[in-house]
Amino acid sequence: MDKVRVGIIGSGIGGLHATGLSKCADAQIAAICDIDRTRASKLAEDHSIPTVYTEYQELTSDKSVDAIVVATPNKFHAPMTIAALEAGKHVMCEKPLAMNAVEAAKVVEAGAKSGKVLMTGFNNRFRGDSQLLKKFIEDGELGEIYYAKTGWVRRRCFHMLGGWFMQKDLSGGGPLIDLGVHVLDLALWLMGNPKPVSVMGSSYAMLGPQFFKKKGMVYDVEDLAAAFVKLENGATVVMEASWQSHVAKDEAYTKLVGTEGGADLDPLRIYKDMFGSPVDIQPQFDQVSGHEMEIRHFISCVKGESQCISTGEHGLHVMQVLDAIYESTRTGRSVDIA
Amino acid sequence: MDKVRVGIIGSGIGGLHATGLSKCADAQIAAICDIDRTRASKLAEDHSIPTVYTEYQELTSDKSVDAIVVATPNKFHAPMTIAALEAGKHVMCEKPLAMNAVEAAKVVEAGAKSGKVLMTGFNNRFRGDSQLLKKFIEDGELGEIYYAKTGWVRRRCFHMLGGWFMQKDLSGGGPLIDLGVHVLDLALWLMGNPKPVSVMGSSYAMLGPQFFKKKGMVYDVEDLAAAFVKLENGATVVMEASWQSHVAKDEAYTKLVGTEGGADLDPLRIYKDMFGSPVDIQPQFDQVSGHEMEIRHFISCVKGESQCISTGEHGLHVMQVLDAIYESTRTGRSVDIA
Amino acid sequence: MDKVRVGIIGSGIGGLHATGLSKCADAQIAAICDIDRTRASKLAEDHSIPTVYTEYQELTSDKSVDAIVVATPNKFHAPMTIAALEAGKHVMCEKPLAMNAVEAAKVVEAGAKSGKVLMTGFNNRFRGDSQLLKKFIEDGELGEIYYAKTGWVRRRCFHMLGGWFMQKDLSGGGPLIDLGVHVLDLALWLMGNPKPVSVMGSSYAMLGPQFFKKKGMVYDVEDLAAAFVKLENGATVVMEASWQSHVAKDEAYTKLVGTEGGADLDPLRIYKDMFGSPVDIQPQFDQVSGHEMEIRHFISCVKGESQCISTGEHGLHVMQVLDAIYESTRTGRSVDIA
Amino acid sequence: MDKVRVGIIGSGIGGLHATGLSKCADAQIAAICDIDRTRASKLAEDHSIPTVYTEYQELTSDKSVDAIVVATPNKFHAPMTIAALEAGKHVMCEKPLAMNAVEAAKVVEAGAKSGKVLMTGFNNRFRGDSQLLKKFIEDGELGEIYYAKTGWVRRRCFHMLGGWFMQKDLSGGGPLIDLGVHVLDLALWLMGNPKPVSVMGSSYAMLGPQFFKKKGMVYDVEDLAAAFVKLENGATVVMEASWQSHVAKDEAYTKLVGTEGGADLDPLRIYKDMFGSPVDIQPQFDQVSGHEMEIRHFISCVKGESQCISTGEHGLHVMQVLDAIYESTRTGRSVDIA
Amino acid sequence: MDKVRVGIIGSGIGGLHATGLSKCADAQIAAICDIDRTRASKLAEDHSIPTVYTEYQELTSDKSVDAIVVATPNKFHAPMTIAALEAGKHVMCEKPLAMNAVEAAKVVEAGAKSGKVLMTGFNNRFRGDSQLLKKFIEDGELGEIYYAKTGWVRRRCFHMLGGWFMQKDLSGGGPLIDLGVHVLDLALWLMGNPKPVSVMGSSYAMLGPQFFKKKGMVYDVEDLAAAFVKLENGATVVMEASWQSHVAKDEAYTKLVGTEGGADLDPLRIYKDMFGSPVDIQPQFDQVSGHEMEIRHFISCVKGESQCISTGEHGLHVMQVLDAIYESTRTGRSVDIA
Amino acid sequence: MDKVRVGIIGSGIGGLHATGLSKCADAQIAAICDIDRTRASKLAEDHSIPTVYTEYQELTSDKSVDAIVVATPNKFHAPMTIAALEAGKHVMCEKPLAMNAVEAAKVVEAGAKSGKVLMTGFNNRFRGDSQLLKKFIEDGELGEIYYAKTGWVRRRCFHMLGGWFMQKDLSGGGPLIDLGVHVLDLALWLMGNPKPVSVMGSSYAMLGPQFFKKKGMVYDVEDLAAAFVKLENGATVVMEASWQSHVAKDEAYTKLVGTEGGADLDPLRIYKDMFGSPVDIQPQFDQVSGHEMEIRHFISCVKGESQCISTGEHGLHVMQVLDAIYESTRTGRSVDIA
Repeated sequence: MDKVRVGIIGSGIGGLHATGLSKCADAQIAAICDIDRTRASKLAEDHSIPTVYTEYQELTSDKSVDAIVVATPNKFHAPMTIAALEAGKHVMCEKPLAMNAVEAAKVVEAGAKSGKVLMTGFNNRFRGDSQLLKKFIEDGELGEIYYAKTGWVRRRCFHMLGGWFMQKDLSGGGPLIDLGVHVLDLALWLMGNPKPVSVMGSSYAMLGPQFFKKKGMVYDVEDLAAAFVKLENGATVVMEASWQSHVAKDEAYTKLVGTEGGADLDPLRIYKDMFGSPVDIQPQFDQVSGHEMEIRHFISCVKGESQCISTGEHGLHVMQVLDAIYESTRTGRSVDIA
Repeated sequence: MDKVRVGIIGSGIGGLHATGLSKCADAQIAAICDIDRTRASKLAEDHSIPTVYTEYQELTSDKSVDAIVVATPNKFHAPMTIAALEAGKHVMCEKPLAMNAVEAAKVVEAGAKSGKVLMTGFNNRFRGDSQLLKKFIEDGELGEIYYAKTGWVRRRCFHMLGGWFMQKDLSGGGPLIDLGVHVLDLALWLMGNPKPVSVMGSSYAMLGPQFFKKKGMVYDVEDLAAAFVKLENGATVVMEASWQSHVAKDEAYTKLVGTEGGADLDPLRIYKDMFGSPVDIQPQFDQVSGHEMEIRHFISCVKGESQCISTGEHGLHVMQVLDAIYESTRTGRSVDIA
Repeated sequence: MDKVRVGIIGSGIGGLHATGLSKCADAQIAAICDIDRTRASKLAEDHSIPTVYTEYQELTSDKSVDAIVVATPNKFHAPMTIAALEAGKHVMCEKPLAMNAVEAAKVVEAGAKSGKVLMTGFNNRFRGDSQLLKKFIEDGELGEIYYAKTGWVRRRCFHMLGGWFMQKDLSGGGPLIDLGVHVLDLALWLMGNPKPVSVMGSSYAMLGPQFFKKKGMVYDVEDLAAAFVKLENGATVVMEASWQSHVAKDEAYTKLVGTEGGADLDPLRIYKDMFGSPVDIQPQFDQVSGHEMEIRHFISCVKGESQCISTGEHGLHVMQVLDAIYESTRTGRSVDIA
Repeated sequence: MDKVRVGIIGSGIGGLHATGLSKCADAQIAAICDIDRTRASKLAEDHSIPTVYTEYQELTSDKSVDAIVVATPNKFHAPMTIAALEAGKHVMCEKPLAMNAVEAAKVVEAGAKSGKVLMTGFNNRFRGDSQLLKKFIEDGELGEIYYAKTGWVRRRCFHMLGGWFMQKDLSGGGPLIDLGVHVLDLALWLMGNPKPVSVMGSSYAMLGPQFFKKKGMVYDVEDLAAAFVKLENGATVVMEASWQSHVAKDEAYTKLVGTEGGADLDPLRIYKDMFGSPVDIQPQFDQVSGHEMEIRHFISCVKGESQCISTGEHGLHVMQVLDAIYESTRTGRSVDIA
Repeated sequence: MDKVRVGIIGSGIGGLHATGLSKCADAQIAAICDIDRTRASKLAEDHSIPTVYTEYQELTSDKSVDAIVVATPNKFHAPMTIAALEAGKHVMCEKPLAMNAVEAAKVVEAGAKSGKVLMTGFNNRFRGDSQLLKKFIEDGELGEIYYAKTGWVRRRCFHMLGGWFMQKDLSGGGPLIDLGVHVLDLALWLMGNPKPVSVMGSSYAMLGPQFFKKKGMVYDVEDLAAAFVKLENGATVVMEASWQSHVAKDEAYTKLVGTEGGADLDPLRIYKDMFGSPVDIQPQFDQVSGHEMEIRHFISCVKGESQCISTGEHGLHVMQVLDAIYESTRTGRSVDIA
Repeated sequence: MDKVRVGIIGSGIGGLHATGLSKCADAQIAAICDIDRTRASKLAEDHSIPTVYTEYQELTSDKSVDAIVVATPNKFHAPMTIAALEAGKHVMCEKPLAMNAVEAAKVVEAGAKSGKVLMTGFNNRFRGDSQLLKKFIEDGELGEIYYAKTGWVRRRCFHMLGGWFMQKDLSGGGPLIDLGVHVLDLALWLMGNPKPVSVMGSSYAMLGPQFFKKKGMVYDVEDLAAAFVKLENGATVVMEASWQSHVAKDEAYTKLVGTEGGADLDPLRIYKDMFGSPVDIQPQFDQVSGHEMEIRHFISCVKGESQCISTGEHGLHVMQVLDAIYESTRTGRSVDIA
């Protein structure tokens, strides 16, 4: 394989992927697909993409295409990814992998059957700080990580929300599936991807419905959620996500506590003992774009040069936790993950 | 009743209460009791306390005493408080109210039967910042509080731990019952004391046993714990406590999120919207000693001038949550509180 | 009226207004007028303005023009504004409204006679922080404002002064009429525009004449001035303005003290008591351009959708104070404003 | 004269002077006088003062006493100082010199007639930073100072006010005479004591009466005042003083602007141009007690070793300004000082 | 002479000089010379340079050229500069003037013989802060400077090093000749260019060889060096330079200690005593480009309007010190400079 | 040996050692010796020391004394230490060990002959940060240390200098022997005590003679000195010391650069690379008194429980460098150390 020929579905976040691919010597963008031809054509022009489609089936049946990036509203992630895999394409699907765990399991199954690369687009894993922290952890600097806190909360972002984000039948959920999915994945990945086994959670919609009602818009997802997740290795992850709530400030964080050391991401710090004294370690790291490094990794996997570190299974596990949070909100008790 | 005549059991933290009582015009310290007569006598001398006992039964049967402060190791809280109540004394018992919820329930029952004041010594409620925040909340500035995070974690305090703290049969537990009890109570009290109904928790002893084994000492309690608590009104509290763990720094915090505003304690800040814009409100407050204001409140309750705001029931509810955290650690699932 | 057709006189600050108007859906720039045709043509090209005039009479007699923005050297403010009003145009005149109070009164009179919108261009009123503070005040958060301090002082700006600014016969004055006019207006407007009744002031020209003499240029205005202004409602405003003086740093500020609260603009803070404790309120606000919001307001007034909040009378009152400062400098005593 | 023998009237601030005198090798405290014998005796014991009087006439007629420090409530400053001068004593009278300018003039007259040292206790002149700034000024570093701003404002100090401060018949005024007197004097002294010739001012009592009424106390002085003062040399001083008002924070400041440089006191900074560039000069200075250095200066003057730098005339000029502020508040116009 | 016609040799740093020359009204770029015609042509296009040469002899023999800027790898500085001088051109040669002191002496000799301007390109002398500090020093503000510390050290810059820098036969040395040359010159120039007479130094290559060996590249220069330099006037300069070493952070500094004051460059501060107190003077200065001001000075010298302040002799003295450092590293003792 | 019985000579810094010894369970202070009996008796009283001597020979001949601490002016260090060693006492001598290297060598010889503990009082080695850094270094965290900078400079301390410090015949030198001795020793000790082999240095007396002449006092030592020291292992130390000079601020520092890492003391930081990224390591350490830990170490050595880490040889090596600095100042060249 010379240059990997990539097709992109969706011209919103897809534009970001086009930028990343343009910098990637091993890839070329073969086609862009969007139901809105105008937006697709604009992107095609910006990145010299030769072909524009408006139906994704046109893309999946394009023989010249090796790999497909799915970057549409959440509702379409699963069906498009499955179709692409069945058509023999390698696929990188934007997070979340699907609307819920049932769908996500089908995507994973299709990936396994296809023998192709199925990657979930967890771009935050590919940031310079995340990658460096992962090296510390893999080298045993934190020992066994038994406790983690992770969250992405915002004080005010309703005014930035557009289109389909607030409609559950298009998005699958609110800040949990938009932001929480990122930080939960970060924590699990840094901990070595132990499986979640039991979850208690609460989700709330205290501000959104009222805010959007005034604007004549529907809002039927949560606006804040929190969860307590037990993992198969006995560790615990505490998580929260919010689009809007009366908190001090916007904040994204992942904090890990292990037997030999602890760590903060955002900003990156390691806490250990050396020679009997507590030490804070402050590393410098490369300020690389997570999105760009993510797409480079995908291309490398497609070429068989790397093993995919952000698999469909990882995307499924995160969806299982999210499903469980919604169910726990209904039942008031913890929910087991089979 | 002229001056309330108070007896103190325990000369450790009891010394602190003696200091507070000395500043209180409405009270006088009638007696001090400690099994270690030397320590008791020292305290008696410092505060001009006329009587020293070594058996608490001597104090509870002292007719001249109106009220008793129980400030002994946790194991003795329940029996001494019950004995004092049965002897017709008003009692302020240091937190935790007992070693577990079963014991705590008996204390509450004894309190109800006695008709006397039964106060749990949650001194952090009485700090200047806590009291001021409570006023904001009671005035509706935060609206309905539906989400809270609270915790007290330390990076390093094993070297400060003495005596009975690390032995479960004397203390009832580790940082949960020592520190967690404070912050959980603060959150519940600020939220208006809704009852906890379901709890998922994890407790760990990853560093303590090894650390103290080197010193030839027993350590059989947790060193870090976290929990997720659902309340009867639908709100959620997330909590953590630790004596030692690889975290950035020592930290005690209580963060509240409500429909009309949010708040941080430590340091005190209120977050609201005014005229369509987010505002941060930074109040100045009196730097009063929580312990001193607590004892003043107790005396005022004994004199019938105030209604007790830190009841035995509140102490019981916190114990129920702690019990549930330990059980959830064993079962891996949430635990209902009857 | 569909789109308001606006003509601009003056292509210096007029360029800023052209930019604002370009973003305004309800307006179109019909013509630009400048005695320097080259500069006018350049602006016309940048903003696709169809017509260029070099004599303002051409513009005022252009029937297709609804409204005129006067943005010339101060000397021409009054005659051009009066001419435009008499020609039936709505006018927004840059501050100061005129060279002195006598002239300003004639402008106001012409405005009244015309029945058209006459707006003084106090753009600082339209900044996000000013507008938000005004809402707090109108809602009574500060109570009755009885004392204000306002100023705009610079350590060094002689090297930035060009052309007509330093010549009294063109400008009417120095930093008082350039900077002081802004901050005095801000204070008065925030206080609810009570009329100034008595003024004591001092103006100095200690550095300017010498500095410009070295460059062979005339400088016959003040370089620093301060004033004490009593208002009809009993309140006091203290004011200062300087282009260059040996102060710590450049600074623009407006500080208000009221019976229920105080406030700082630059940066915006509110000081109050809540529940018996002093609180500092720090609002977030939109970083909008004062110039752009100002022109939007003017268009809205012209369309009859808003009541003008920055009237000719307000411009007159400020001029009365400035005149009084110069007179008080001469007399050494306070000056009454009729 | 060997050691100057000093008598002190008043044991409040008088205690501070006793401390200063104790450190002064050239002086000894011969007697202390207070109508409250208990307080006087306590002070006598602390500083080994041999004689205690309760009537000031006893002290003024004590032949063994060379000098007297008057440190009583303001009402008594003038009569006691005059009596002491007439008895042939040197006098240092706490600021303000009197209740008003008429009284102050009589004190000055008595001083002149007596031929003794009459010093006004402006202790802030004697601080390390004030003294150092004075050296810069006297050396011409600021050139001619033509503009000054000075003030002492507090956000909250009603709860610190006791006894006679709020009663005009005892104090002569509120924050103007308590705090304003200090900062106005500092500015005038640093400027070389040019005479004030015209004053416009405003004083307000917006918060005090109501605050103290709740406590059943009388409050009939101002709580905030501001003034604009023209000096005989053409310079201007703007001044403010407040005990309580809705301002950002407590602040005392003196800012000077001269032809060659400017300065801030609190903290001390000098602003100049050197080699064509603006420079900020930050001096280090000795952290000496103003009160102690003041009393050392008084003793030195009494011994004839120094010329008094804080004269009765200076005290009078300040009083003339304060009187004029009150009058200007009534008349709404400026007031000339004869 | 109308406009100075300048030829540039070398299109790397030469581009920077082209930019500076473009802003210089008194000069025009007549020709650009580079062995790589493509790079030269690119530069010619960017700056509208009429002639492109690939052999420097073409340029030196171009009669229309008045002055030449030599901006090639160090190895070529001496031969090209000498050739240009011999061809009757004024020359500004980038620092270092040559590969070593022997070569540098020949350059200086050629300059003297030619009677033309020979300037060494010490651009840091021409920064706003350097120029302002020089004025303070020349005015005697620091008195006699007897001690200086200067250095330019980096924590990590191996990854930025390209091409010929690490090869001694092309560069003459490592960070000493790249960075040290700048700071040593700054110190000497600010001190008034006293001649160095004796030098002890140490140079190390502890990290570079290993780092570049991994990349298959040669590295045969030092990576850190330090020196102690005695000057003819008795003063001492301590110096250091490094491209990469385990230090806290990148840092360039020059610190001067004199009998009347001291100074820091980076950032600019002056330390003196005034009126018996230590003062810190913080000047503001123009943020001008050293490179641009340097080339303006060269043009001014060529036109005979200025005396060259950055002579060939200065370049020679610095080279003598560098040579001595290498020799002292070998001998372990100090080295005299003849 | 039960408790080490210690005699102290000198009651200045000797008081500090008495305090340290008082906290040391293994030692008791047997006697204090000072030519000023009053000062000695005062110290004896404060620390319950049974015997007071005024002649050091009395102490050295006191059979009951095991060990002696010499804490007199520098001139007496050598003779008293030698006398004590010859009398069979263990000795801790305050730094510097002697007035010069010749004397110091005799002390070392006496120590060797005696077979007793001879310790040089380098208290800064015993601080918490120094000890922790030493552990990092001994564990190889910095690799081979090839370059160090160390210094102790003050802006202003002449006013703190008393008595014998400024007289060379009593002190042996100025800031070099007072402050420089500490930081030079710190650097050498942290580097593993390689022997100094060659030194270039400069010492200056630019401010001291003049300053003290005004006070009628002799000052014949340097006030600033700097040096460049080559060590037997090829490493270099750059050093400076000053009592008073026009520098930014007082500063004591030791900076180490090694092949694997670097370090700063004051405050303690380690600089390394981990996983290809530069990291800053910030340790927490115990804030112990260097003086107290030093005396504890001495007692431990006397009891044979520790090997002395601060030997006479170390004190000698530092003296050799200081001697060489003075000589290099005279010769203008480097000086070899035999």
